[in-house]
Amino acid sequence: MGNADEGGAEFARRVPVPPSRPFLHTFRANLKETFFPDDPLRQFKNERGFRRVVLALKYFLPILDWAPTYNLGLFKSDLVAGITIASLAIPQGISYAKLANLPPILGLYSSFVPPLVYAMMGSSRDLAVGTVAVASLLIASMLGKEVSPAQDPALYLHLAFTATFFAGAFQAALGFLRLGFIVDFLSHSTIIGFMGGAATVVCLQQLKGLLGLINFTTSTDLVSVMKSVFSQVHQWRWESAVLGCCFLFFLLLTRFFSKRQPRFFWVSAAAPLTSVILGSLLVYLTHAENHGVQVIGKLKKGLNPPSMTSLTFSPPFITVALKTGIITGIIALAEGIAVGRSFAMFKNYHIDGNKEMIAFGTMNMVGSFTSCYLTTGPFSRSAVNYNAGCKTAMSNVVMAVAVMITLLFLTPLFHYTPLVVLSAIIISAMLGLIDYEGAMHLWHVDKVDFCVCIGAYLGVVFGSVEMGLVIAVSISILRVLLFIARPRTTVLGNIPNTMAYRRLDQYPAAQSVPGVLILSVDAPIYFANAGYLRERISRWIDEDSENSKSESLQYLILDMGGVGSIDTSGISMLEEVKKIIDRRGIKLVLANPGSEVMKKLSASEVLEAIGQEWIFLTIDDAVTACNFMLHTRKPKAVTEGNKASCDDAV
Amino acid sequence: MGNADEGGAEFARRVPVPPSRPFLHTFRANLKETFFPDDPLRQFKNERGFRRVVLALKYFLPILDWAPTYNLGLFKSDLVAGITIASLAIPQGISYAKLANLPPILGLYSSFVPPLVYAMMGSSRDLAVGTVAVASLLIASMLGKEVSPAQDPALYLHLAFTATFFAGAFQAALGFLRLGFIVDFLSHSTIIGFMGGAATVVCLQQLKGLLGLINFTTSTDLVSVMKSVFSQVHQWRWESAVLGCCFLFFLLLTRFFSKRQPRFFWVSAAAPLTSVILGSLLVYLTHAENHGVQVIGKLKKGLNPPSMTSLTFSPPFITVALKTGIITGIIALAEGIAVGRSFAMFKNYHIDGNKEMIAFGTMNMVGSFTSCYLTTGPFSRSAVNYNAGCKTAMSNVVMAVAVMITLLFLTPLFHYTPLVVLSAIIISAMLGLIDYEGAMHLWHVDKVDFCVCIGAYLGVVFGSVEMGLVIAVSISILRVLLFIARPRTTVLGNIPNTMAYRRLDQYPAAQSVPGVLILSVDAPIYFANAGYLRERISRWIDEDSENSKSESLQYLILDMGGVGSIDTSGISMLEEVKKIIDRRGIKLVLANPGSEVMKKLSASEVLEAIGQEWIFLTIDDAVTACNFMLHTRKPKAVTEGNKASCDDAV
Repeated sequence: MGNADEGGAEFARRVPVPPSRPFLHTFRANLKETFFPDDPLRQFKNERGFRRVVLALKYFLPILDWAPTYNLGLFKSDLVAGITIASLAIPQGISYAKLANLPPILGLYSSFVPPLVYAMMGSSRDLAVGTVAVASLLIASMLGKEVSPAQDPALYLHLAFTATFFAGAFQAALGFLRLGFIVDFLSHSTIIGFMGGAATVVCLQQLKGLLGLINFTTSTDLVSVMKSVFSQVHQWRWESAVLGCCFLFFLLLTRFFSKRQPRFFWVSAAAPLTSVILGSLLVYLTHAENHGVQVIGKLKKGLNPPSMTSLTFSPPFITVALKTGIITGIIALAEGIAVGRSFAMFKNYHIDGNKEMIAFGTMNMVGSFTSCYLTTGPFSRSAVNYNAGCKTAMSNVVMAVAVMITLLFLTPLFHYTPLVVLSAIIISAMLGLIDYEGAMHLWHVDKVDFCVCIGAYLGVVFGSVEMGLVIAVSISILRVLLFIARPRTTVLGNIPNTMAYRRLDQYPAAQSVPGVLILSVDAPIYFANAGYLRERISRWIDEDSENSKSESLQYLILDMGGVGSIDTSGISMLEEVKKIIDRRGIKLVLANPGSEVMKKLSASEVLEAIGQEWIFLTIDDAVTACNFMLHTRKPKAVTEGNKASCDDAV
Repeated sequence: MGNADEGGAEFARRVPVPPSRPFLHTFRANLKETFFPDDPLRQFKNERGFRRVVLALKYFLPILDWAPTYNLGLFKSDLVAGITIASLAIPQGISYAKLANLPPILGLYSSFVPPLVYAMMGSSRDLAVGTVAVASLLIASMLGKEVSPAQDPALYLHLAFTATFFAGAFQAALGFLRLGFIVDFLSHSTIIGFMGGAATVVCLQQLKGLLGLINFTTSTDLVSVMKSVFSQVHQWRWESAVLGCCFLFFLLLTRFFSKRQPRFFWVSAAAPLTSVILGSLLVYLTHAENHGVQVIGKLKKGLNPPSMTSLTFSPPFITVALKTGIITGIIALAEGIAVGRSFAMFKNYHIDGNKEMIAFGTMNMVGSFTSCYLTTGPFSRSAVNYNAGCKTAMSNVVMAVAVMITLLFLTPLFHYTPLVVLSAIIISAMLGLIDYEGAMHLWHVDKVDFCVCIGAYLGVVFGSVEMGLVIAVSISILRVLLFIARPRTTVLGNIPNTMAYRRLDQYPAAQSVPGVLILSVDAPIYFANAGYLRERISRWIDEDSENSKSESLQYLILDMGGVGSIDTSGISMLEEVKKIIDRRGIKLVLANPGSEVMKKLSASEVLEAIGQEWIFLTIDDAVTACNFMLHTRKPKAVTEGNKASCDDAV
């Protein structure tokens, strides 16, 4: 196994140059790996005709997969889960619609049609569909900048439908074009910070309802809201505030209880509806609506009216609708897909991100035609669904039926529901989204991720929701670019009694080899780091010759194992490094280059400059060869070209 | 060395968790590595007081380093080189100033003051300072959009000075803030495409001069220029065109000759001045200025007037000046630094990029106070300087003195110089910038780099100069992001008779280990690829179990050698992969994780979940351990947690 005694020629266990393949072949393979990493068409390969159509239908409508084997046992579980989430969906739906400055009834509409669509197309068994606070807030703040919901409610409503349509179209397009990985760029830390910030902002907005204020700022940042609240101290209504605080206390208490006793998950799930009923009764009996407690008022009876004709595609407003649609769409996707994946992992089944995107997209497009606004799979509701023991997407159907019954018969009951109860429901839901433990964990594990998280949080709280998002995504991308721009180069040493070479600073036992400097590069060599690497390698050589006065440096071994890819700038860099160290009489040796690196070295003819005989399979091979050369004859300083030295080396 | 016989406990040659260091310490080390990779303060370490001041002065003024040892022998070489580049600088300066729509005399001013500043501050011995065509064109097109040089020449001139000031300030700031690596993001392939495109556009602009047209479009794209030229066919002047073509032919001929016979470099270097003299004589003798051949006209005698008071910092125009300054500044830097580095490499001395930026920045700021516009180190002039045998920056001083003499006494001689000769000079210089061989080399070596290059070229030619730059930088960054988003995972196998494990698809001899799947990841695991890697690893396991029916998969070894860094999303991904494969009865084993990965695994407690005893120094150790387990006892399928299996494994 490559001992020093075996002589020079045997050292060169050659690193092969991969055979060159036709360009189109490589291109197709790369395209497939980029856009179809999960190979979704695999199942269609050996099928034909009718069977293919059935498979395709099953692919897009997973309900065809599970419905045939559906039975009463499963339905019992789904019924319980469905009723539980309906009792949460009704008050939350109304609350979030108010948050989006939309008519409260839209919250109910949005819990009727979209869940039915998702039940057919979605592949998650645990996701409960509904509106979410963050997207609602975004709609209010982004659309509110262009159109005032108080002065032109009809136009505002139409724009909300249009934005929902665009969001759906965008989501479906991402899925069809296999661009699901764009969502991955919203990292976990971005989402923690962003959600926490959005939750803070949403809670601040609830001060309006809690304090019974009539006028309120349309900005969402902390400073504007605080100014707005404290400039109207004399309009604060204590009745409203007391009522709100009581209900908030009740809701938090049930949440705390359910968290301690997971068996009683239904306590916190039913608490919002209980609060709504209690609050409505209280107002009805005490006529508090005449004493500063605002109520929902009349809700129209009946199912979703069609809204297809309300979509507005005319120039002045299409831009804001498109922008709102894309931003809310991607946020909604990020939440829905993350939730779906987490529960799928708990229950050990598979979720196809791109397919889910098509389901979400279709659901929102259909929703925008039937008076619904943006829906996704909110975490809180899905968690309740999961805890309630749902088995399939049928629980969404049950919820939709419950909401339908409410829409048809029960809407008058919400006439006296106080707005302050809705505020309390929102605040209690939002407090659960501020994940300070998650943030502490980030600080503990990865400081950059913590910066991303705090950047997103502060951006949302002090700037705007979009700003927080932009800050977080920028820091994340900057981190990736910085990793590439400043790759770590480390000196390796031999671990005694092994053939392994490891970082000197990580393994105290590792020993450097006299006369040989082994450097490892742990990133692809690209234009962005080629200049840096050239400088850094020179500095390593300088430092090495300063430190070890005894034996002068003769060989530089570059461990290319971590270099996944190289571009033309990287190739030129290697060429330059070779020239620079050649002049100092040092020989460049490569160890373990990957196939892409070998291919490019060979195509650019740098391979010949370095000499194929100076490229080794392992670091150990390279060191053995260097040692052999060092101890059999002292190599002369190589000054003119390297051809000569290569020739007499082998 | 870890044979299968030595028993379970010995396999675990432990991978140490690096000791946790104080956060500030790590932060400082990272900061230093990012911004001071070349450790410029090293030399100040053991010095004090006066000596430090001297060293600092020498750092910023390299002239103090070489001037004391300067002698007559060096001066002789520099004198020849200086006179040669002056004969090139004078006609080129005038031509490029015309290209920037500035008074021609500015070209001479810009070859007087900036070279003197650079001679003091610059660390390159071969760079010849002067104006460049691309930056001149950019100034014309960017400033021309806001202010017409024909209608308001004074304001246009002031804006050009202001833009130059901003460019200098920006360059110096980049140098002081150690942000030189931003320039690295203009990759070699970007520059080939961009320069080629700019040269094409500059040549197209010369059609105005060649055809003697009075009116011409202000756009630079191919379509607009062609429209403008062919809409005024009847204004074409044949006298001008014939004269231009003759001189162009002469210039190209001398260039061709000098390229074939490098000894006669001075033939092509002197050709522009010869053309100017011949052209002027011809016009003077034939009075061709009355027959459609436009001439330069009166040039003011005297040295640079101060222009400090002309800088315009008032609101409506400051934006365009700032934008122009930053873009031209960065382009000029990219060219100047690349040129400086190339020649430094030929002569084997070192150039500090950040220091050069400070020199360029100061030179341009001083220039903007003394009626100069943007200068840098153009490739063509520096190559002539190098070929003429320059030894130090003194050749720039000689050139400046020659230009000074011209400014003081010889400007009237340029009265009759025909513009068409200047056009011919520009075209002949530009044709050298279209590096189609370089582009072919890119296609040959790296297809993505070729796309970047062509993107930049087409963007410049059919869009605008800025658009080409944006396209090229976007493709380059997208490539980096895509590398991170879609890292390659490859299956490794043992190379017979060695302990090395390499890619099965690269090494045909490599053999996979039955019952064990060895996967290697060759990129950092970040939020952007965590989802993809989870899916891809699952697919590898699926494919493996489909292919090998004989022995079912028991161990998944992840080779972490190529994983340079990991963030919290990556850590969660590992945790999820562990859970997923645990349920399938497969054990997760890590081989050779780096110190950062170990640190984060330990901080996040995933290390305990995997079990430190399942983390090995080398793949071979891991395989040996797996084989030992496989053959001594059949591990049961692990279904509930992994604690139990870990315990009975060790």
